[in-house]
Amino acid sequence: MTVSLGELAVRFGCELRGDPAATVDSVAALSQAGPRAVSFLANPKYVAQLADTRAGAVILDARSAASARVPVLVAANPHATFARVATLLHPDPPLNPGVHPAATVSRSAQVDAGSEVAAGAFVGDDARIGAGCYIGPGSVVERGARIGDGCRLVARVVIGPRVSLGHRCIVQPGAVVGGDGFGYAPEKGTWVKVPQLGSVVVGDDVEIGANTTIDRGALEDTVIEDGVKLDNLIMIAHNCRIGAHSALAACVAIAGSSVLGKRCILGGKVGLTGHITLCDDVVVLGTSFISHSISKPGVYSSALPSEEAGVWRRIVGRIKRLDSMAKRLRNVEKHAGISAAHVDNQDSSED
Amino acid sequence: MTVSLGELAVRFGCELRGDPAATVDSVAALSQAGPRAVSFLANPKYVAQLADTRAGAVILDARSAASARVPVLVAANPHATFARVATLLHPDPPLNPGVHPAATVSRSAQVDAGSEVAAGAFVGDDARIGAGCYIGPGSVVERGARIGDGCRLVARVVIGPRVSLGHRCIVQPGAVVGGDGFGYAPEKGTWVKVPQLGSVVVGDDVEIGANTTIDRGALEDTVIEDGVKLDNLIMIAHNCRIGAHSALAACVAIAGSSVLGKRCILGGKVGLTGHITLCDDVVVLGTSFISHSISKPGVYSSALPSEEAGVWRRIVGRIKRLDSMAKRLRNVEKHAGISAAHVDNQDSSED
Amino acid sequence: MTVSLGELAVRFGCELRGDPAATVDSVAALSQAGPRAVSFLANPKYVAQLADTRAGAVILDARSAASARVPVLVAANPHATFARVATLLHPDPPLNPGVHPAATVSRSAQVDAGSEVAAGAFVGDDARIGAGCYIGPGSVVERGARIGDGCRLVARVVIGPRVSLGHRCIVQPGAVVGGDGFGYAPEKGTWVKVPQLGSVVVGDDVEIGANTTIDRGALEDTVIEDGVKLDNLIMIAHNCRIGAHSALAACVAIAGSSVLGKRCILGGKVGLTGHITLCDDVVVLGTSFISHSISKPGVYSSALPSEEAGVWRRIVGRIKRLDSMAKRLRNVEKHAGISAAHVDNQDSSED
Repeated sequence: MTVSLGELAVRFGCELRGDPAATVDSVAALSQAGPRAVSFLANPKYVAQLADTRAGAVILDARSAASARVPVLVAANPHATFARVATLLHPDPPLNPGVHPAATVSRSAQVDAGSEVAAGAFVGDDARIGAGCYIGPGSVVERGARIGDGCRLVARVVIGPRVSLGHRCIVQPGAVVGGDGFGYAPEKGTWVKVPQLGSVVVGDDVEIGANTTIDRGALEDTVIEDGVKLDNLIMIAHNCRIGAHSALAACVAIAGSSVLGKRCILGGKVGLTGHITLCDDVVVLGTSFISHSISKPGVYSSALPSEEAGVWRRIVGRIKRLDSMAKRLRNVEKHAGISAAHVDNQDSSED
Repeated sequence: MTVSLGELAVRFGCELRGDPAATVDSVAALSQAGPRAVSFLANPKYVAQLADTRAGAVILDARSAASARVPVLVAANPHATFARVATLLHPDPPLNPGVHPAATVSRSAQVDAGSEVAAGAFVGDDARIGAGCYIGPGSVVERGARIGDGCRLVARVVIGPRVSLGHRCIVQPGAVVGGDGFGYAPEKGTWVKVPQLGSVVVGDDVEIGANTTIDRGALEDTVIEDGVKLDNLIMIAHNCRIGAHSALAACVAIAGSSVLGKRCILGGKVGLTGHITLCDDVVVLGTSFISHSISKPGVYSSALPSEEAGVWRRIVGRIKRLDSMAKRLRNVEKHAGISAAHVDNQDSSED
Repeated sequence: MTVSLGELAVRFGCELRGDPAATVDSVAALSQAGPRAVSFLANPKYVAQLADTRAGAVILDARSAASARVPVLVAANPHATFARVATLLHPDPPLNPGVHPAATVSRSAQVDAGSEVAAGAFVGDDARIGAGCYIGPGSVVERGARIGDGCRLVARVVIGPRVSLGHRCIVQPGAVVGGDGFGYAPEKGTWVKVPQLGSVVVGDDVEIGANTTIDRGALEDTVIEDGVKLDNLIMIAHNCRIGAHSALAACVAIAGSSVLGKRCILGGKVGLTGHITLCDDVVVLGTSFISHSISKPGVYSSALPSEEAGVWRRIVGRIKRLDSMAKRLRNVEKHAGISAAHVDNQDSSED
């Protein structure tokens, strides 16, 4: 698609400094962009990168604009504006509405005539698929599921029985929404399966990453609120609730019945224990483990960066003897006549 | 399905306190249950929740029974009894026996006439599927695989070549049983693939979670014993053996040739190194790492709970200097005339 | 397949000590092997295991050869030679060239006549599949993808749009190569999706494990170089580059734009933060977290082995109070007249 800089400026509310009739047809990184490509500079810190770009235009903020030698589109939020320009110039392939002959759709299912069901897809009894959806190859939409308008199940997705997705959701390949939760009653050294009768309710504008799994609730539903973004290989257990516009990086695992507030950000590989609550705007750094509820917005961590293995082995040895070391320190303090009261105060004031 | 309280009492060996002719048709949480629903109280600690329930009956233990104002079913193990009642009232949809026209079954495969092979499923040469099985949409049962009676491959499951499943197994969507193990011989800075010629042998009553992977053995088999429950996104490497009735929470990873005893419980994200053995009845808390064999039943952990990130950063700085700190402590002890022998004894007695 | 020991010796450049006319037809572990099976001893340390084997021949190195009572094939690299013998004796089932009637191949796709496209597979517009490939049941090869010669997509694999695979790649079931990267621009507490316009370029002789996900690049490509081996459930985020002949164990996660050198080895569950670079020949032990670039080949770790849970709880308590403990130690040092300068030197010399 080809578009003029003037049209981009009008459409996305940017100030154009350059020829409005000049045209572009693609986006690219600053260092790769040729004269037909739009690029962007999200962070004024990297303004030096503008010097060598051959881009047809660069989307940037007012502060950086003066440094550019090519046409610029000045935007309040250059990254978001770039995202929209990229979406305009590189649209998804158009839908090919209808049910592919190699797809299987139950007679009791309702698929909007403007939606595409690709080869090898399966739509079960009483499932309902809204307008403008793409049900990609090999995807499975089980009985009674509800898919809103404009959803895109990329390929080989599973939407379980009675699961509902809002509008404009994107589900990447291999994701499973609505498998059974992990619920068993212990009985004499064995496990009795507890039927998982709840479902999963997914809001609007949610994206679910490749091979991510979201389990259905035991009795009530697992809930993913509007605008949540889930990366790949994430595990959301039964009865969790993920607050609106939260973003979870890859390999996060959240145990059963935990609740995230709105706009939480969890780094890669973060683990949350079950039955806890995070308030709004909690950020957890990658690989950390959250074992207690958090009621104060902020950044949390238990990430442990690596060392050269020999050095680390010595540190681990020290960690394992920390209790002994603390007792030895107390002993030395006593020897020196340093009062326990003083120490305890100091200690408790820092816990 | 509608059933009388009297019938439930007889069927599941409960003492009924209430009208045996009253009927129920579903299960629900205490707070959600209406007069047609059965609920349960697994933990006497939460007996106060009984006060407001409108449930048609509550399954609970003898101790809690007196506190209820609605009919009760007194059970020795309320949670297990509830699981069975829930299964009765909310059965899986009935099988639709036969091979769907959009499924592909090899002529040399044997599928019991009472089993259902759904649309898009594939059953390879010489595979054998027992009675009362459900092979869900898009599932792949490779050549020579054996599926026992009453198994349920929910959707898009892969059962690899020659893999065998016992009876009454449930495999959630996206699980892969019998991919190649990760085996390579190093040679001049490159890797030569070692064919993975073993298989996977899965016992009876095993459940395998969504997108979990169990690799086939290199020469001998990977073994999952009876009654094992595996949550989602678990990795079981080649030649492992998981002891009967063990339960592994999501995102557990077990490296090659490790062996778990019976009734082990691994929390979410636990990692086990390869070639180790855990005895029966080992419990590992979530996110912990097991690097050595364990020969004593008990609870093990290396979980590190998060702190506010600034606080944590200081702690990490201290951890990284622990070796120096230990030397400084020793120096102070010497200065104070505290004997090294005394310290060493203390130290070694705590290791 | 049956082959004589003489032929094996010639074919794989071994010195045979035994009857060249004796034949074998399979491989097996030392303890399981019968007289028709070839076994191997990779590590001279386990030479005692030779005593009881009934193998038809054992592949081993010159040092161990004298200890064997059965025929031996002396090899420079017994494990690699064994891998090749095993591949010869236990070949993959032969291809059944052509497109299965239950597969769907776009008219604009090009599939080499010697390749097999199995039931339920999907090959999109303009995709190209080389010679001698196996596209397993339920696999999806999206529009414009390129698959080199001799590749094997085992089952239910997804190869995304425009992704390219080199020659002789093996992709285990459920792997997703080329899902969208996790890219969003924040805007007023919500996220704007940044189209992921790059692709994934996979080299020759790469193996990708079950349910592993490799995301496509944002603007440029994610690159997996020749000979890389990826285990199951791995996450490679957008714009990463994995250097040739690197091997990553299960559940590794690498955040966006990170670069691994050649011949790196990452243990299970290792996490790498984004935008970092590891030089060639870096080894990271299982469960460790790498948060900074590494420019020196070697072994790195932050793995924390478990303790009995009560012991560990005390250690964690001590860790959380380390900052206080360090201050108390400094206080004791002052009391004893030990100079801060001395301490600081000591400290900094060890950091």
